Amino acid sequence: MSTAAAMHRIGAELGKHVIRMTSAAGSGHPSSALSLTHLVGHLMFRGMAYDPNDPWNPNADRLVLSEGHAVPIVYAAYAALGGAVGRTKDDAAALKSADLSELRSRDSLLDGHPNPAEGFPFFDAATGSLGQGLSIGAGLALAARLDETSRRVFVIIGDGESREGQIWEAADFIADQKLNTVCAVFNCNGQGQAGNVSGQQSAERLCAKLEAFGWKVTQIDGHDPTAIEHAFAEVGRSVRPTAIVARTIKGWGVEALQQGNWHGKPLKESQLSAAEASLDAAASMAGEPKSEVDLRPEPPKASVSVTRVCPREVKWPSFAEAMESGGFGEGVKNRALATRRAYGAALKTAGELLPQVVCLDGDVSNSTFTNIFAEAHPKRFFECKIAEQNMVSAAVGLAAAGYIPFVNSFAKFISRAYDQIELASVSRSNIKIVGSHSGVTPAADGPSQMALQDVAYFRSLTSVRGDDRTSPLCRIYQPADAIAAYHCTRLMIELPGLCYMRTLRPDVPFLYGDETVFAPGGFNVVSPGEDLALVGSGYMVHTAMQAAEKLAAKGIRAAVIDAYTLPIDGDKLADTLRGCGRKAFVVEDNYGGGVGAEVAEIAARCGGLRVDSLHVQRIPKSTRNEAEALDYAGIGPAQIADHVLAFLSRPSN
Amino acid sequence: MSTAAAMHRIGAELGKHVIRMTSAAGSGHPSSALSLTHLVGHLMFRGMAYDPNDPWNPNADRLVLSEGHAVPIVYAAYAALGGAVGRTKDDAAALKSADLSELRSRDSLLDGHPNPAEGFPFFDAATGSLGQGLSIGAGLALAARLDETSRRVFVIIGDGESREGQIWEAADFIADQKLNTVCAVFNCNGQGQAGNVSGQQSAERLCAKLEAFGWKVTQIDGHDPTAIEHAFAEVGRSVRPTAIVARTIKGWGVEALQQGNWHGKPLKESQLSAAEASLDAAASMAGEPKSEVDLRPEPPKASVSVTRVCPREVKWPSFAEAMESGGFGEGVKNRALATRRAYGAALKTAGELLPQVVCLDGDVSNSTFTNIFAEAHPKRFFECKIAEQNMVSAAVGLAAAGYIPFVNSFAKFISRAYDQIELASVSRSNIKIVGSHSGVTPAADGPSQMALQDVAYFRSLTSVRGDDRTSPLCRIYQPADAIAAYHCTRLMIELPGLCYMRTLRPDVPFLYGDETVFAPGGFNVVSPGEDLALVGSGYMVHTAMQAAEKLAAKGIRAAVIDAYTLPIDGDKLADTLRGCGRKAFVVEDNYGGGVGAEVAEIAARCGGLRVDSLHVQRIPKSTRNEAEALDYAGIGPAQIADHVLAFLSRPSN
Repeated sequence: MSTAAAMHRIGAELGKHVIRMTSAAGSGHPSSALSLTHLVGHLMFRGMAYDPNDPWNPNADRLVLSEGHAVPIVYAAYAALGGAVGRTKDDAAALKSADLSELRSRDSLLDGHPNPAEGFPFFDAATGSLGQGLSIGAGLALAARLDETSRRVFVIIGDGESREGQIWEAADFIADQKLNTVCAVFNCNGQGQAGNVSGQQSAERLCAKLEAFGWKVTQIDGHDPTAIEHAFAEVGRSVRPTAIVARTIKGWGVEALQQGNWHGKPLKESQLSAAEASLDAAASMAGEPKSEVDLRPEPPKASVSVTRVCPREVKWPSFAEAMESGGFGEGVKNRALATRRAYGAALKTAGELLPQVVCLDGDVSNSTFTNIFAEAHPKRFFECKIAEQNMVSAAVGLAAAGYIPFVNSFAKFISRAYDQIELASVSRSNIKIVGSHSGVTPAADGPSQMALQDVAYFRSLTSVRGDDRTSPLCRIYQPADAIAAYHCTRLMIELPGLCYMRTLRPDVPFLYGDETVFAPGGFNVVSPGEDLALVGSGYMVHTAMQAAEKLAAKGIRAAVIDAYTLPIDGDKLADTLRGCGRKAFVVEDNYGGGVGAEVAEIAARCGGLRVDSLHVQRIPKSTRNEAEALDYAGIGPAQIADHVLAFLSRPSN
Repeated sequence: MSTAAAMHRIGAELGKHVIRMTSAAGSGHPSSALSLTHLVGHLMFRGMAYDPNDPWNPNADRLVLSEGHAVPIVYAAYAALGGAVGRTKDDAAALKSADLSELRSRDSLLDGHPNPAEGFPFFDAATGSLGQGLSIGAGLALAARLDETSRRVFVIIGDGESREGQIWEAADFIADQKLNTVCAVFNCNGQGQAGNVSGQQSAERLCAKLEAFGWKVTQIDGHDPTAIEHAFAEVGRSVRPTAIVARTIKGWGVEALQQGNWHGKPLKESQLSAAEASLDAAASMAGEPKSEVDLRPEPPKASVSVTRVCPREVKWPSFAEAMESGGFGEGVKNRALATRRAYGAALKTAGELLPQVVCLDGDVSNSTFTNIFAEAHPKRFFECKIAEQNMVSAAVGLAAAGYIPFVNSFAKFISRAYDQIELASVSRSNIKIVGSHSGVTPAADGPSQMALQDVAYFRSLTSVRGDDRTSPLCRIYQPADAIAAYHCTRLMIELPGLCYMRTLRPDVPFLYGDETVFAPGGFNVVSPGEDLALVGSGYMVHTAMQAAEKLAAKGIRAAVIDAYTLPIDGDKLADTLRGCGRKAFVVEDNYGGGVGAEVAEIAARCGGLRVDSLHVQRIPKSTRNEAEALDYAGIGPAQIADHVLAFLSRPSN
């Protein structure tokens, strides 16, 4: 009783901060935040085992606020506890209640939605694009299992948000992986943004669904401290993951916020005193606490120390050794191997060198060749089944705990998780994405299996700088042969941050020797030529070489450049192009916006260079082989040669 | 008994075609197709009410094969029935069994995955990227309800595929909308690509889940014709949507395909006769049919005729009239209005002019302002809740039935459905996507709510030609004021095909008069200048105008160009830039790959023009207002002016 009264009192005080800080910010979601008053209050003051002064402790229980817009309640609680904030442990300081009024301002680390990169390390990853938190929690729990820490992961999910399919992908994944340290808390306040939450997301319906998904489910009143206490005490004691479905009141404690649609709207300054009185009244209905309220959470239950090997300090074996170890000795001998196979062998090697390398795949490991990794390192391979959104967000959770996750599927199906990838970039997540079967070369399967927008999508991320203001936020790798694939895999690991590699289905001949250097921003002149440069990447380097031969027969000396990574070093490329007749013709097996746009931007910025490009011209259809697929798309060697001739004969305006 | 024997016999014959055609193609998924032998056989020969000679009939029952890789079984059945194929009704011909051996070849309309645009009108939309079919079926059912036809929609879903969250978004949506004419058939063969299907997707677990989602569920043996007959006879008779969960055998009838992992692998020619004998044996176990098998489906049960108004033949009211009718008379008087508001009013007007305009929104209609449409046309407004993937694919179903669906959410959350949008493009789907709160101007909410890659993503689709080989596959609209938003909405409807409009949160002043012309490929010179052109779109036109003023103070005459649509007419833009000192500086409130890349490509192709650009330079964070958001992103007016000065002083190399 005393504790319940104390929790109500804490809730009222946190609620006052919530309404004040959102009013000061002029925006935010006080009504959503207030619906979590008691649930967050319990977790942060009593339920979670952690030390607010050390949110970096790997043994600490974690909280993922999937419904990120409710974050003010977490900020309020953390400030009350004087929790540590700062971008690194070295520059940590205690959050004060006075800081709360800076919510959402430019110089505040209290962003509008959870955003640890701005300096709020209590969170592991950004949330706010809905439905992603449970998957992130799954990744955090996988990491805890690998680290052999006993920490638990609490994920708070909105009822309206639980309409997102990804929640149910995560529910399946957590059950599959038996991640019984995960507790999903559903906040059923019944109100969405534009109207009431559907009956399909009622507390009763959610309970039925979660049970059908194999979870242990408890339904409670989300403002009853005793019920909350009992429900959370059960977490981790079942052989099934736990869900707590809590009936709550949007705008708890503040009558004004409970009438009409207040979603995403702060109170006016003039409404604050009445609202504070309303909160006090709501709290005192449960009686006053016996003594001064001074609850603090218990510290972490374990103290396992976690260290990681520095990726730059390991010595990689030779390409041939790695391929041999992956089972591709024959390919090395024949000097022909698909880049997806070389990647599979490279990843196995990476797993041997670095215990923090982990791998996720979406039921296509026998196509992406991550099955080589899975056989060698079964505990670090996670079969995510056909659910790419959950796969990417789970990787974000793993990365937050210091793992280096490789996320794999057909390049086409990676696009299922583009929103998750963008949110991962906000988390500055160190995830490595590899899409196989890229471009039009999966010929016979047809357009539904071909990645055609992937380069444009990821290139937009490469155009931005990371927090060091120098490195790109993302890098793209498009290896043209097995040797390049091996070295690009190494670069993906050595260079921290988000990256994307495109691998190919068909076998391709080797272009390079063991000694070839692959470097960030780099490109390789595969063959020289003075009249113009043909620029390609991946499969199209081979096609460009065939086109160059056709052009040579007409007396045109075309260099071939392999643009194996983006962003490319623009100054260096411009210099090289000046030696190739100041002209470049870019060929791509995807839609526009990829390497062609990159080279055109470099040329247009410099002046004095001309660039044209040829990419997939129409929606592909099934053809029986790669040559037909290229021809249908308008990017075969003869078509390239024709376009180059037209380009060369067109005068500059 | 006789019918059951006949269905087994039909199944065996279809099975023979399946194994032969995939072997001839050298690829395909015979084992998946064979698991559907009896289910597809029943639906296409008996269960569905349709005329194979007229797949265009709007009264006909529809089949959506969500697990698209199993398509050979449908091709086999359709050929046996002599179903009509062809891109239009005028060039229709009967599919013959002999055509099947051309599966997946360049000149065949039998694509590797369902692809109606290549000439297989039995299907309404492309499938093959998994998990999308049930949503497409929902859209087809919504259209049937609006058209007052009684057709039913059958959707076949793989068990492994049902791991995709979108399936469950669709299950909620169909229950919410009470679309009881939808029948979802789950094909539980227990085998995925890389391994067995998870227990989370077992027949039993799927039944429990579907019941928890509010569906009527029947579990059957998917190779028992009598059980199949009984189960399908119940479809549409319940007040709940129907799910049939069928236990099946991957590679039914062909022993060779049942041992080991045959996913996606055809038999060798040498294995075919044994496989055919195996199929015959499997069929005859149920006894031989009494007479020659000659089953055909019943024709459609209704004959409602459906006509649509031609979008180009309606007369739109003036901008002011439309805004007045939408409740924004005040904005017109003050000459300032957010583009999202103008769009809302325009859409209401469109709904009045064209009964086939429908609207879908994801619980943000009070932010996107589609609530104006919803109030005026409640039957044509579909609240999709927070589940964007289902929303886009449902729109594809509606579009397939001749509706013009507008799909709405925050631009950021539209990215949740990029894979669905790409598949919609394969369907040549006439869907109109509108993303509000684009760019960095949702300032205080922070990066998780900002669309920053959307222009790059959609621009890649604009780079490809549609089937007429002339029009772009997609168009982007970025209106800079309310008047532009009104006319862009009109263009979206008048020009058939996929398009994307970006609207803005804040109010912006009017730039244009009523008489301004907006046209495909067009741009507007907002203010003239001889030294260079500042090119922007949307909010950045206003920012560019402020930068131009700063430059004018330094004696630099900068034109301002509003690039309100992509793709842009490159020749015309190059001409205009030649009158602006042959220099352009593009400013964008998104990451790279958008308008800047478009203009750079035009310049690099022409030669003699220099282009530089400034887009969002870093990951945004919360700020309290738009000016701060621009400044933080490095794209404020002063920053633009500084970059322009540096650009002008940099010599051409």
